[in-house]
Amino acid sequence: MIIDCHGHYTTAPRALENYRQSQIAALNDPSQAPSLSELKISDDQIRESLENAQLKLQRERGTDLTIFSPRASAMAHHIGNAATSLDWSQVCNDLIHRVCTLYPENFAGVCQLPQSPGVAPSSCIGELERCVTELGFVGCNLNPDPSGGHWTSPPLTDRSWYPLYEKMVELDVPAMVHVSSSCNANFHATGAHYINADTTAFMQFLTSDLFRDFPTLKFVIPHGGGAVPYHWGRYRGLAQDLKRPPLNELLLNNVFFDTCVYHLPGIELLLTVIPIDNILFASEMVGAVRGIDPETGHYFDDTKRYVDAVSWLSDPDRHKIYEGNTRRVYSRLERRIPTKVSPQQQTSAQARR
Amino acid sequence: MIIDCHGHYTTAPRALENYRQSQIAALNDPSQAPSLSELKISDDQIRESLENAQLKLQRERGTDLTIFSPRASAMAHHIGNAATSLDWSQVCNDLIHRVCTLYPENFAGVCQLPQSPGVAPSSCIGELERCVTELGFVGCNLNPDPSGGHWTSPPLTDRSWYPLYEKMVELDVPAMVHVSSSCNANFHATGAHYINADTTAFMQFLTSDLFRDFPTLKFVIPHGGGAVPYHWGRYRGLAQDLKRPPLNELLLNNVFFDTCVYHLPGIELLLTVIPIDNILFASEMVGAVRGIDPETGHYFDDTKRYVDAVSWLSDPDRHKIYEGNTRRVYSRLERRIPTKVSPQQQTSAQARR
Repeated sequence: MIIDCHGHYTTAPRALENYRQSQIAALNDPSQAPSLSELKISDDQIRESLENAQLKLQRERGTDLTIFSPRASAMAHHIGNAATSLDWSQVCNDLIHRVCTLYPENFAGVCQLPQSPGVAPSSCIGELERCVTELGFVGCNLNPDPSGGHWTSPPLTDRSWYPLYEKMVELDVPAMVHVSSSCNANFHATGAHYINADTTAFMQFLTSDLFRDFPTLKFVIPHGGGAVPYHWGRYRGLAQDLKRPPLNELLLNNVFFDTCVYHLPGIELLLTVIPIDNILFASEMVGAVRGIDPETGHYFDDTKRYVDAVSWLSDPDRHKIYEGNTRRVYSRLERRIPTKVSPQQQTSAQARR
Repeated sequence: MIIDCHGHYTTAPRALENYRQSQIAALNDPSQAPSLSELKISDDQIRESLENAQLKLQRERGTDLTIFSPRASAMAHHIGNAATSLDWSQVCNDLIHRVCTLYPENFAGVCQLPQSPGVAPSSCIGELERCVTELGFVGCNLNPDPSGGHWTSPPLTDRSWYPLYEKMVELDVPAMVHVSSSCNANFHATGAHYINADTTAFMQFLTSDLFRDFPTLKFVIPHGGGAVPYHWGRYRGLAQDLKRPPLNELLLNNVFFDTCVYHLPGIELLLTVIPIDNILFASEMVGAVRGIDPETGHYFDDTKRYVDAVSWLSDPDRHKIYEGNTRRVYSRLERRIPTKVSPQQQTSAQARR
């Protein structure tokens, strides 16, 4: 089984975007406020939005299950206030739930959190709990910069995050560290802000004792870990200069990297320097880069091709990247889609009994 | 000859730091204002500060010349105002000039610019011109975020930068894109802010027509180009999706990467994906990472070892990285330290006459 741990509902029916536009318009003119009853999306529209996109690509590329969350760039926590964010998060998460209900074998849900700049992260606990316990979601996306590129909130290691982390630990769900769109002209969203946030979060973790306080807290750093694997020597050296424990002790029980790196040399580097146990397969399709690489004739974001092309990867290691690690990190996945046991494994298990 | 294009005077005599502290104290209490006559640094103190640091490491590692600039983390353009920055920049640049005068074969100067948040970059033209025409400097360091981690200035592609770029083109000097310390708790300076700035600048260049307006303007992106080479597929794909020209046409005549990547797999990736003509040897010693890698027994920042270890690199390509490219980008270097012609080359040149 091949699990893609990083997909967003970037192809949601237009009605969702219209709802959001009304919501934003109502920030200055409450008469524009949309009502949920206006947000009409049929099951067929959902099917249509996926059949020729994520589902088609799953089939073509040979992946089975996508851990699926609302469109990251549309979270836009910087717009409006906490009430705006809660309403928008619920609408988006409910739609993800419908996707996962329609295609229970293809998608498992991860929720958007109703973060808002200047508002304590504990405000997200209710929606996280609802999504996990009522909707069967297996994780959340956590925005390290709800200001959208101004970085006005405290680092992820600040104690204001602790109540949310306590709930994550209690529910046994990981967070993918994922910013949203940028409203700072310096940062292109997918080309700079996303990657910078990944790098930033890692260095916040490196300089803190967060995982001493939460030994079972888990974060996935997407986009191949930002700049971190490329500068792995720098990070090992900084940890040493700062008198921190070695990185494997300090954070590799808690921090994982996905494979959203869109060329073979990058994937080879990732698989060379980062322990295999810390790498989760992902493509972020349909996402940041949608074209075909003229150098290969294949989609840039068809990351399975790159992982498959790494000839020195052993079968057990490949299995970890494609399924095992992701099941370990997103541990609630097992309740939704139990690990398939092969006939050989069944036989040997029976023999052991 | 081996030229290291990226070194800062991180070991300057303590008197420099004391001067700065007085300058900062005077922001609130003008009676504390330091006078230049108080800043007493003897030639011997300068020699002492370098002999057991940069010069020793040059000898040990087998490098010849370092392109040398004031300590990047101490530029701190966010402190005080334009007058503060000008005074501090002149003091720092003058000290670099003394270094280069004492050791003309070992150091060539690059200047700090007197940037200040909210102040037009044209305010830096005078100091740039002074350093290049009077002190013989060969380039400048340009801070894409003079706010120190709040990113409140316009992108590097904004027209407010153009007067400075015109002067750079006129003087034929490149800029290394280099932020300073971070006063935003989210960003560790050398572990996040530096790398993020590199990535950010590249994406600003990718989305603009800056190099159509300035075909001969040159930037060096340090720290191995931030996250860019690791995500080279992402950047090629983003350029394509955004209907930009291919990266080699769009910016590879103008943008160069240094080799400050502190492990062999990272250097191998850099040399694999980025055209050799765009790579400049550098170590940033004595800089961000000062320890010895327990995995190799050598300094993390001894980047020459990594470049030397890339067995598939041809001698002509190695020469480009170690000297040729740097002479092309920092073209005024030739006036200070002419290319050494080997006896063979001399003989064949005489034969051609």
